[in-house]
Amino acid sequence: MKARLRNFLVALLALAGHLALTSPAAAATADPLPSWREGPARQAIVKFVQTATDRASAGFVPPAERIATFDNDGTLWTEHPMYTQLAFALDRIRELAPQHPEWKTQQPFKAVLDNDLEALAAGGEKGLLELVMASHAGMSTAEFEALVSDWFKKARHPRFKKPYTELTFQPMLELLAYLRSNGFKTYIVSGGGIEFMRPMTEAVYGIPPEQVIGSSIKTRYEMQEGKPVLTRLPEINFIDDKTGKPIGINTFIGRRPVAAFGNSDGDREMLEWTGAGKGARLMMLVLHDDAEREYAYGPANGLPDTKFGTFSQSTMDEAKQKGWIVISMKNDWQRVFSFQPETMNPAKK
Amino acid sequence: MKARLRNFLVALLALAGHLALTSPAAAATADPLPSWREGPARQAIVKFVQTATDRASAGFVPPAERIATFDNDGTLWTEHPMYTQLAFALDRIRELAPQHPEWKTQQPFKAVLDNDLEALAAGGEKGLLELVMASHAGMSTAEFEALVSDWFKKARHPRFKKPYTELTFQPMLELLAYLRSNGFKTYIVSGGGIEFMRPMTEAVYGIPPEQVIGSSIKTRYEMQEGKPVLTRLPEINFIDDKTGKPIGINTFIGRRPVAAFGNSDGDREMLEWTGAGKGARLMMLVLHDDAEREYAYGPANGLPDTKFGTFSQSTMDEAKQKGWIVISMKNDWQRVFSFQPETMNPAKK
Repeated sequence: MKARLRNFLVALLALAGHLALTSPAAAATADPLPSWREGPARQAIVKFVQTATDRASAGFVPPAERIATFDNDGTLWTEHPMYTQLAFALDRIRELAPQHPEWKTQQPFKAVLDNDLEALAAGGEKGLLELVMASHAGMSTAEFEALVSDWFKKARHPRFKKPYTELTFQPMLELLAYLRSNGFKTYIVSGGGIEFMRPMTEAVYGIPPEQVIGSSIKTRYEMQEGKPVLTRLPEINFIDDKTGKPIGINTFIGRRPVAAFGNSDGDREMLEWTGAGKGARLMMLVLHDDAEREYAYGPANGLPDTKFGTFSQSTMDEAKQKGWIVISMKNDWQRVFSFQPETMNPAKK
Repeated sequence: MKARLRNFLVALLALAGHLALTSPAAAATADPLPSWREGPARQAIVKFVQTATDRASAGFVPPAERIATFDNDGTLWTEHPMYTQLAFALDRIRELAPQHPEWKTQQPFKAVLDNDLEALAAGGEKGLLELVMASHAGMSTAEFEALVSDWFKKARHPRFKKPYTELTFQPMLELLAYLRSNGFKTYIVSGGGIEFMRPMTEAVYGIPPEQVIGSSIKTRYEMQEGKPVLTRLPEINFIDDKTGKPIGINTFIGRRPVAAFGNSDGDREMLEWTGAGKGARLMMLVLHDDAEREYAYGPANGLPDTKFGTFSQSTMDEAKQKGWIVISMKNDWQRVFSFQPETMNPAKK
């Protein structure tokens, strides 16, 4: 190809690119947040993204520093009537029970096998930890990943009769995509198990495993028949909740987020840590106030504390004081789940 | 802009793109590895990248799975006469000494203040840990980052009289860039301190903080005058060496690398873990056999074990058995440091 012809085509190419970018037809883009109603939550998101990406703004955030962190349970997907990972643990305990006849009389296992949720709750955090160790340890990381992937295919949510991976909040999926399309790197920072989430986050949220931070148990590297495996041990390594969230963010990412999203007292420190940086910031909390389309719970809106994702009045007070935006599922979301009709909304129908 | 004109320009654009890609002038690209001599090491790298990126190949690696992990000390930069981080720790101890009169008589501090490297070595790992705790803990993460950044500006390597950040191996910088230009995500997986490396890895290696894995001490989240800080505690959190490397990779990345690069016994498990996966693989070890341009040490090439980056005969045997490629600095590298003339090579000049 002659250089002159190539130069001519390159010039035309530049012109075409310029015209394509500035022509009204191309500029008319679809709303990136169709499930968000007009209101303060939506406005805060759009204003934040405009400021963070505007080189002329004092709040401009260089692309490399556009880190957004999301809690998972109750923020990106439903956490009721129990954390999804707890549902997995209970199913696994039932599956393993024939090999453990002693569980018939031994708490907290007896409570699981009797479907006695009150006795389970009475066992407290210690009981839950015992269940996690019995159901999550004693196999290789590869075996655990296969167990989790298999469970996600079979398990159904008791109320919605859908796979748990469909119980994601449509407005939050749009928010993740909107942030990514504006150069943000989206992370999950969850109290849930890191290896429980990783098998599904890429397909469900578009978040690759290396952008998932969570709680973990210890592993041991060992050779089995000449092949290296990582064996999961019944020993806590890290709890990624409350003060663990900024600690985990600092360990895994080494940068302070500019945006953070949560829904419970466990997310306070992550939002504080995010808010203490300079430049454009966005801190948001999802308030579960929509019993019809999802669930309503938590002292922050005068409802009972169910112990899953407690949003206390004290966190609500801190949100008001620090300018964190509270998202009302009922009022701010046009749609909660993708499988629900848009019209299904008690406030607006 | 009229649609017909736009369509015409778009068609021309596609044509220009096609011709640009196929014209000989554009295809003649510069050698991405100019500091690598022809030989088995260079050939292994090029063949691996061709296989991993060729959709028609059985060894094709999807872009999302193109993870390459690099040890730092002795693999990406010089680790002699001592690890860079140890030089930082010793300088810091000297700086803090006026506030600690007891160090004049107390080991391992006395050894540092007396410049008595033998006494320092006699203190073993326990002594080194004490030095790290005294020099790396007791301040916030932000204060530590400032200390490290400041030190990198002032400190000079005793032999080369250059900033430590210039003591990087030019062939490895080219390899990092070559892998990234072929869709690989490059990570550092080092026994060194994660927060010691992060302030410089982006500028020096093009590796952002979130792609740096290393050893760490614990931190505590606390409020100081209403502002959240992470305080560094004198307590080990994680040692990212030997079996810690695959464990750290699994924790931070959640994917198995397809390529791994090291230079010591501390990298064996990382290379084993990488090699045990399916598809195209590349495992390499840098052998320090070039006393003139850098250093020569280690039992693997019949030289004394200096305790920094020990490459034992047993690791050399495993490399041969498993097909790991050993890189001879003397023979495989045309140039070691960017500041040295290309002709400076005892083997070829």
